[in-house]
Amino acid sequence: MNSVNEAAFEMDDLHDPELSARLQHKIDNKTKPLGSLGRIEQLALQLGLILRTETPRLEQAQMLVCAGDHGIVKHGVSAFPSDVTWQMVENFLAGGAAVSVLARQHGIALNVIDCGVNHDFAPRSGLIIRKIAYGTADSLQQAAMSAEQCQQAIQNGREIVKNLPGNAVLLGEMGIGNTSAAALLLARLGDLDIADCTGAGTGLDHFAIARKVETLRLVLKRHAGASTPLDALACLGGFEIATLVGIVLQAAIENRVIVVDGFIASSAVLVATRLAPRVQQRCVYAHRSAESGHRLMLETLQAKALLDLGLRLGEGSGAALAWPLLQSASDILCDMASFESAGVARNDGELA
Amino acid sequence: MNSVNEAAFEMDDLHDPELSARLQHKIDNKTKPLGSLGRIEQLALQLGLILRTETPRLEQAQMLVCAGDHGIVKHGVSAFPSDVTWQMVENFLAGGAAVSVLARQHGIALNVIDCGVNHDFAPRSGLIIRKIAYGTADSLQQAAMSAEQCQQAIQNGREIVKNLPGNAVLLGEMGIGNTSAAALLLARLGDLDIADCTGAGTGLDHFAIARKVETLRLVLKRHAGASTPLDALACLGGFEIATLVGIVLQAAIENRVIVVDGFIASSAVLVATRLAPRVQQRCVYAHRSAESGHRLMLETLQAKALLDLGLRLGEGSGAALAWPLLQSASDILCDMASFESAGVARNDGELA
Repeated sequence: MNSVNEAAFEMDDLHDPELSARLQHKIDNKTKPLGSLGRIEQLALQLGLILRTETPRLEQAQMLVCAGDHGIVKHGVSAFPSDVTWQMVENFLAGGAAVSVLARQHGIALNVIDCGVNHDFAPRSGLIIRKIAYGTADSLQQAAMSAEQCQQAIQNGREIVKNLPGNAVLLGEMGIGNTSAAALLLARLGDLDIADCTGAGTGLDHFAIARKVETLRLVLKRHAGASTPLDALACLGGFEIATLVGIVLQAAIENRVIVVDGFIASSAVLVATRLAPRVQQRCVYAHRSAESGHRLMLETLQAKALLDLGLRLGEGSGAALAWPLLQSASDILCDMASFESAGVARNDGELA
Repeated sequence: MNSVNEAAFEMDDLHDPELSARLQHKIDNKTKPLGSLGRIEQLALQLGLILRTETPRLEQAQMLVCAGDHGIVKHGVSAFPSDVTWQMVENFLAGGAAVSVLARQHGIALNVIDCGVNHDFAPRSGLIIRKIAYGTADSLQQAAMSAEQCQQAIQNGREIVKNLPGNAVLLGEMGIGNTSAAALLLARLGDLDIADCTGAGTGLDHFAIARKVETLRLVLKRHAGASTPLDALACLGGFEIATLVGIVLQAAIENRVIVVDGFIASSAVLVATRLAPRVQQRCVYAHRSAESGHRLMLETLQAKALLDLGLRLGEGSGAALAWPLLQSASDILCDMASFESAGVARNDGELA
């Protein structure tokens, strides 16, 4: 797997005290009390550091919804049947899903990637077919994917980003069963109890969650040796998650802004940060999901989300909902007047 | 003051179990796990109830930034000088302030209302002059405004809304010293200790906050008898807050969606809900401010805010930042596919 070794993911260190100071000075001179735009100011600073400019303009935002099926679903870990994966892909493409509606609202380009759905799609605009297989293997029996499949999925993600316009990527996903894969990755890479990482997904009741936990515990035992990020991803993950890992890595290498959705998208970011910690500098965490493992996921990533609206849908819907806040941060930094330019007095009583 | 007695603020009870059930059914049949859009679903339901339709479309959103000066400022309750009020009004009109930038981002019409600024503005587009006086009186010495002035300001707010297009109003304000007025109203109408209601405003240090608390404590003592909402508003409030009270009342009477900004806008809503409790049914609370009294304000109003981003700027900036979430809720309700229309299986495994 030498094409996915860590050396392949070298990226710039965005820590730049000089630019950071210039950005902070610019923010502090806007016509408002110091710090009074809170997180929006921090976001403006981050956007400036990622895009390496005092006037970071977000251009041609790209939502990438990665879809795949999961062999583990046969063990009853999801409230919905596997067929919903391909049905929802059709719904994304027809414009009827939540992420379709929200992307349209904000002028975000949307592409759906078939990373490994158990269905043959007719080719069409907005659909990128990078299918590795018709769903992963049952991770209770064997690795969800082979090392080669995992490597190919990561490579697919990287290639997709190389061909994308713009400077911002929003992470979306669809895959019945993928809260299980995300919980497994969190438990393994975060060294956490699987019970703390496992939630209701699309809507399991208490009994079904308990059964899901026990199934996932067995999966972890089955793959006790899979401790590196790539081994864990191959044994426990999914094709859509591996493709997202590639998307995140390449987007980070290209210094794009990465807008992270909920639990599953975060699990891909977790793998990517373990391969290349500087990925983190480019990530904006859109929301804290109501899926119970996401709190721990964000803690593990040392991340603070923008929104906390009880969302637990995935698809990229949370990333799309948070997107206008990024635009606001950019607009504040680029377009708002300074004390000097507006002729407004500072709090020392002197006209600027 | 009979033109502002409670009978003048009669409004519909929006509690409508039949419409509510139809809206909930429509939301539950969207292609997503039940409840998985969290607060956005609750917001969609509320918008449907306010606009009395299963397809609530938000039209021609109107940001109203009410500005006024405060006599209490002479006692050092603000980090900024009073002149900043008129300077910021100029900044709003020139398009350089945070609320100007954010309103432009979201296509929200912005009008600034001179409710009582200590400055003469040249008339121009976007400026509505409804000046009661050149700032309120010093409430440490006398009522901030007379009963007649207060009544006139409320009436001004009502008349402004009557002439507005669209079905949604966003509340903004500007007034050096107005966190003091808002804290006083909260303490009096919420029966709370003024120390718990008072914060740093535009940026006071600990010593200055302690002095502000003691000043405001004396103001409350001076007006110990002002216990009705209107008496409290006249004695403790400000021209911009009273005008906002009128805006809120008239917008509620006309069943417009009311987007509440931070601490000062909430204080106007507090007064309005005490005059007409059904106002609350039309209010969407945009954000929880970092101004320390706002947590108690929201508790007193039994309100839960959408955003929690450490904002403490006012102007309507938080309302503008939250606005896309209202549009999202509307779009989800109006445009998202149902299980039936999209041919997606439900969680009982049956195709819808």
